[in-house]
Amino acid sequence: MYLSKVFAPRLREVPQDADTISGQLMLRAGLLRKSASGIYTYLNLGLRVKQRIEEIVRQEMDSHGAQEILMPLLMPAEPWQATGRWDLYGDEMFKLTDRKGRSFCLGPTHEELVTSVVGSERHSYKELPFNLYHITNKYRDEIRPRYGLIRSREFTMMDAYSFDRDEASIELNYALMFEAYNNIFHRVGLTFRPIQADSGAIGGSSSHEFTVQADNGECSYAACDNCGYAANLELSKAHPATSPENVTGTPPALESIATPGIHSIEEVTRFFAVDPGTVLKSILYIADDKPWLLVVRGDDDINEVKLRKAVQAREGRLATDEEVLSILGVHPGSVGPMQTAVPVVVDEMVRRDVAYTVGAGKDGFHIRNAFFGRDFDSTVVADIRTVRAGDLCPVCGHPLHTATGIEVGHTFKLGTKYSIPLHASYVDEDGSEKPYFMGCYGIGIGRTLAAIIEQHHDDKGIVWPMSVAPFQVVVVPLNKGDDAVWHAALELYEELEKAGIDVILDDRGESAGVKFNDADLMGFPIQVVVGNSFLKTGNFEVTLRSNKTDKKAVAASEAIAFIIDLVRTTE
Amino acid sequence: MYLSKVFAPRLREVPQDADTISGQLMLRAGLLRKSASGIYTYLNLGLRVKQRIEEIVRQEMDSHGAQEILMPLLMPAEPWQATGRWDLYGDEMFKLTDRKGRSFCLGPTHEELVTSVVGSERHSYKELPFNLYHITNKYRDEIRPRYGLIRSREFTMMDAYSFDRDEASIELNYALMFEAYNNIFHRVGLTFRPIQADSGAIGGSSSHEFTVQADNGECSYAACDNCGYAANLELSKAHPATSPENVTGTPPALESIATPGIHSIEEVTRFFAVDPGTVLKSILYIADDKPWLLVVRGDDDINEVKLRKAVQAREGRLATDEEVLSILGVHPGSVGPMQTAVPVVVDEMVRRDVAYTVGAGKDGFHIRNAFFGRDFDSTVVADIRTVRAGDLCPVCGHPLHTATGIEVGHTFKLGTKYSIPLHASYVDEDGSEKPYFMGCYGIGIGRTLAAIIEQHHDDKGIVWPMSVAPFQVVVVPLNKGDDAVWHAALELYEELEKAGIDVILDDRGESAGVKFNDADLMGFPIQVVVGNSFLKTGNFEVTLRSNKTDKKAVAASEAIAFIIDLVRTTE
Repeated sequence: MYLSKVFAPRLREVPQDADTISGQLMLRAGLLRKSASGIYTYLNLGLRVKQRIEEIVRQEMDSHGAQEILMPLLMPAEPWQATGRWDLYGDEMFKLTDRKGRSFCLGPTHEELVTSVVGSERHSYKELPFNLYHITNKYRDEIRPRYGLIRSREFTMMDAYSFDRDEASIELNYALMFEAYNNIFHRVGLTFRPIQADSGAIGGSSSHEFTVQADNGECSYAACDNCGYAANLELSKAHPATSPENVTGTPPALESIATPGIHSIEEVTRFFAVDPGTVLKSILYIADDKPWLLVVRGDDDINEVKLRKAVQAREGRLATDEEVLSILGVHPGSVGPMQTAVPVVVDEMVRRDVAYTVGAGKDGFHIRNAFFGRDFDSTVVADIRTVRAGDLCPVCGHPLHTATGIEVGHTFKLGTKYSIPLHASYVDEDGSEKPYFMGCYGIGIGRTLAAIIEQHHDDKGIVWPMSVAPFQVVVVPLNKGDDAVWHAALELYEELEKAGIDVILDDRGESAGVKFNDADLMGFPIQVVVGNSFLKTGNFEVTLRSNKTDKKAVAASEAIAFIIDLVRTTE
Repeated sequence: MYLSKVFAPRLREVPQDADTISGQLMLRAGLLRKSASGIYTYLNLGLRVKQRIEEIVRQEMDSHGAQEILMPLLMPAEPWQATGRWDLYGDEMFKLTDRKGRSFCLGPTHEELVTSVVGSERHSYKELPFNLYHITNKYRDEIRPRYGLIRSREFTMMDAYSFDRDEASIELNYALMFEAYNNIFHRVGLTFRPIQADSGAIGGSSSHEFTVQADNGECSYAACDNCGYAANLELSKAHPATSPENVTGTPPALESIATPGIHSIEEVTRFFAVDPGTVLKSILYIADDKPWLLVVRGDDDINEVKLRKAVQAREGRLATDEEVLSILGVHPGSVGPMQTAVPVVVDEMVRRDVAYTVGAGKDGFHIRNAFFGRDFDSTVVADIRTVRAGDLCPVCGHPLHTATGIEVGHTFKLGTKYSIPLHASYVDEDGSEKPYFMGCYGIGIGRTLAAIIEQHHDDKGIVWPMSVAPFQVVVVPLNKGDDAVWHAALELYEELEKAGIDVILDDRGESAGVKFNDADLMGFPIQVVVGNSFLKTGNFEVTLRSNKTDKKAVAASEAIAFIIDLVRTTE
């Protein structure tokens, strides 16, 4: 392809709303254009990368036993109503009605539809398992879309759905998909980590997120470099030894102390000159309209996902100051764990052998030497805190670190959550109908593309991995007006194209500076310059975009073989 | 692929609503499943065919100078409001609002979006022309979707948009697309015909439809086998000699005759014993709320598309009997061309040298020897009739024939219809901004798939052309229990796969009859049977699906080369 013919308008300025590096670079390099918040057009260079990622995904899915289908995006409401998700998705789901008044949505995901398709056929256990995937758009009306492809409202996903006999037999499909995902993310050039995850609105019993470490990522996780444990912060636990005992011998007696003007944990810690790990926070929380008292260590934060799971609530929030006063009779800074007007959730890290400093449940006072079990009790003990860097690994006890990342893939064991309400069953060996045991497996194609750029760029632009580059090689003649240069460049370009290399020729009459800057911005892995050095020595200058200091002079006669080899060996 | 592993549930029964052959066969062969009226899931075999068609489309579009992009399906209302099509599309457009109340539609086509994308960049005339295409879904809320892919509500199209300087320079792009379309439809195995067409709601000055002849097609056209003229009935004309003169010498005088009980053209023709071509129909028509009197020959039918164009109306209908009585003062059967209370459109086929029999404009009477120009006149003379088989070709005078077909592709010269309201302009040589001169080019991918089946099937099932077949070869071992048979079949299958042939192995433990029926139904072009003849003579039996009487016995040792060659040479 001639660069002058590619519709890839480049920008020097970055628009103010471009809040991610990948979004900025895709816009600047002419890969993408915005049509509305969270809705984009892929221009030719961007689409080429998207298609290469999809092709790798197809190859790995096919070779791991999945088969491709294509489900519609416009879906009737009925199956969504049957599973309850028509309401559960709320404003995030785009809904519409057709000319006859029938309700439809734009699929935010496809569990309902695939289960309906499979459920309408009669399959024997002998035909199981099977695994159906498709690569198509999804629609989620995000409150805060981000610039570019990391969180958009219309986006492309590969989603696969496996149908098995039972929980034991899904292990094979789950393991195959796990392997396929590892292969896919390796092949597209990502450094990533599968982490244990909460299955959220999709539901099901077990789940992993494939996460690409990135400072601006939306997903936080804790990981252990010793044993490989890694889990989303919504799920990750810490070893009990993270919270050590601190009382030996006879536990000291309770002591009530006037603390005028002392409210926050910081103030309490300073006033009593104690470690925040020996102070307890007591917080009033409203979960599904019901009040709960939450007790965690002073240096811990409540994790609301864990908490809602612990109290089996769909939604929750902190109580207002007025609610605290009216329900517990004190101001928020003086709430204490002895207050039993409401049920109490005590975090697992609160020990029975530590003398804690706590609110007195009375304005203007705190209590020292409060013991869990002796001086206050719990309705529920549960893990409701967020793991912190330095906590000990729940598996091996090594210190954990925390990081943020971009979730590019997700695998779930769904079980029968969809097959039961949608009556999708197979005929078992004994002739009885049994619901399928399902799994689902998603990869965000656009998000993977964005994550690749987040991990592969420098201050000049994108540095594409060879496997997904829109073109593998750019040929840059430096003086188009010079016949010898132009013909040598053109011949090289045509020979490379004949050899099956994806090559682009910068045929523009621009200056060397503009051409170099654009080649760097667009990030083609191999740059071949035909210029002065060619005129003087007959050599082309071959450079890897990923290592620009290493320029190689290659004789024109050897260039084809050299470049083909370089394409094969460059990652 | 093993047939037992493909999710392609076959049906013996055809559902009652399957009103097309292609819809029935796609359902029976397990290519497609319906999710709602006009909304389908492609199963694996169907998707394979779709992808092969798309790949052929991509190759031809790319090699004819177009480049692929990908535009969104969810589109903001604003550009549609700017061109007036937000309202014009009416109920056919799926509309919705996002969580913030902003209006969107699901794109029924992409002129507005592509023009916005291109218009937001600043291009010089030097960068023109370019041609951007994408392959993605379209949404139209059809009143009457048909079963399968011929008219659905969610469907895949390739649509290309060219951007040129002016009407002269678009000719090259238009010719390139015309050639690309011819190549595409040839390569997918269709017998088709490009016909001149009306550009309808898309607008623009010139347009062709690529039409596949099919008895259940929705598009009617007239064609000349002598000179190649072909046009949609909404556009096709007839040679003036189609309506010959019939008066020589002195024109006879007007004659009013009582015709009690005579109303219809048939009754008039019989009563006066004249040819219906010498009787005139006078019809009251309401176009955009304004009445018109239409005058056509008794054997002709009004073509409402032509008529609306002639009177520049957006919509129109026949007047009711009450309206005729109140506006013209007579009953419908007695309306005559002399009535001048409303403007009169006389069809071009009404001659000035023919003595016509017409309604008298007075109940109970008709008039003989009425001459156009002498006894009645016109406000407008225009072509408002529908061409009939036997009419003479407007180009060469040879008799036309008419046919129905499926429109699989469409090309339009749009001109500046979209670039002006959406302010999409380029910088011309003299520095001034000028609106792009646009063309657009669409191919219905699903409809092409359906049309292929409509043209390539027999009473046993589908007969795929090699170029789009889901698998090129099916290997059918007849007795899976026999080790020699099974191993020979498996080896053949694996060798073919290694050689890059798309091959499927019928590994099921079904009877020969079931296997043969399914192979025929699914229509793989080459069938290789490994059975008794193999056990006796060491030969495989190779048959083309398109010619099942010609069975070839091929020695196992020569089978690979033979089949590879057959794949290459079979269309």
